[in-house]
Amino acid sequence: MDFSSKLLENAVNEMSQLPGIGKRTALRLVLHLLKQPKDQTSYLAEALQSFRNEIKLCKNCHNISDVEICEICSNPKRNPEIICVVEDIRDVMAIENTAQFKGHYHVLGGKISPIEGIGPHNLTIESLVNKVKSGSVKEVIFALSSTMEGDTTNFYIYRQLEDFDVRLSTIARGISVGDELEYADEVTLGRSIVNRVPFENSLKS
Amino acid sequence: MDFSSKLLENAVNEMSQLPGIGKRTALRLVLHLLKQPKDQTSYLAEALQSFRNEIKLCKNCHNISDVEICEICSNPKRNPEIICVVEDIRDVMAIENTAQFKGHYHVLGGKISPIEGIGPHNLTIESLVNKVKSGSVKEVIFALSSTMEGDTTNFYIYRQLEDFDVRLSTIARGISVGDELEYADEVTLGRSIVNRVPFENSLKS
Repeated sequence: MDFSSKLLENAVNEMSQLPGIGKRTALRLVLHLLKQPKDQTSYLAEALQSFRNEIKLCKNCHNISDVEICEICSNPKRNPEIICVVEDIRDVMAIENTAQFKGHYHVLGGKISPIEGIGPHNLTIESLVNKVKSGSVKEVIFALSSTMEGDTTNFYIYRQLEDFDVRLSTIARGISVGDELEYADEVTLGRSIVNRVPFENSLKS
Repeated sequence: MDFSSKLLENAVNEMSQLPGIGKRTALRLVLHLLKQPKDQTSYLAEALQSFRNEIKLCKNCHNISDVEICEICSNPKRNPEIICVVEDIRDVMAIENTAQFKGHYHVLGGKISPIEGIGPHNLTIESLVNKVKSGSVKEVIFALSSTMEGDTTNFYIYRQLEDFDVRLSTIARGISVGDELEYADEVTLGRSIVNRVPFENSLKS
């Protein structure tokens, strides 16, 4: 694309570095900013800058946080003996939305993925193992996506933790609430039969 | 969404002000920046800021430009007697890509749209009329989108210019090159029959 303006070209090029944003979309976004008050661009630029430069990772659970120890870890009402292992903050937000979990989290920061060059040492697995070693943890719940990378990561952590006196569990896989049986894939349906639960459990929610 | 981090929330909120970017996409983009070097965020923020604050509109054609008079208007090889009226810089870029037009442009900055509150006075129509009044223009080509707003704008400008000694033309509407006749809509097909051109013309280019 020939922009005939260095300023525009620069803005579009930087914008199109973001995932899923091509040059055309970037141009549309940047031209939109031009029609808005200058303040909007300043706010956006400043918000991105201060987010990137000032954000911290919680020293305990490695989740994104404004302070050294995040709100969840510093909440005395939450149980630090149950740790839910997730990939990133989006999973924390999803689980928090259910209001069903009152323990702590441990954010791995990704999944083991040889294709993307992410090994166990790029994740916060060691810190999790140390927490378990210290003996303060009673249960570790694996809540990674059910993909090949997720399963690999689960298994890797499982092997690191199996010798300790800690309960290891994984979130239930099964038919989504509201789904029709006939459209469910056979792996999911199979697992939901193998891992059937007492009927009384389904009456709670 | 509960982000439990003001910095993250701020960044996501500002990002989701952009058109077509919801909160979830904004979160994905912002978390992506966190995995990249800090420089990338700085470059993005600075590029947007300096684009928004330093960009000018060409005094002649009102196109986006880094300087007072844009590259196209200051190019002595281009013919200032033929003016192509377009909506914004994206149309200029599209027409420039064809390499078929060697005149000047006139960028309106939008189309007349009562629904969006855009009237003739929000556009650069007066400046176009003054250019024609000065007698230096031989032909004005309308190249707005073929929508109701585009047609309204075309007609409004046409009424302003019809009494001057200037040729008024519009870009040809017809079947796209490579398209099958049977799938063309009847309005387009009808116009392409009414406005048929000598066969020799189709041999050029």
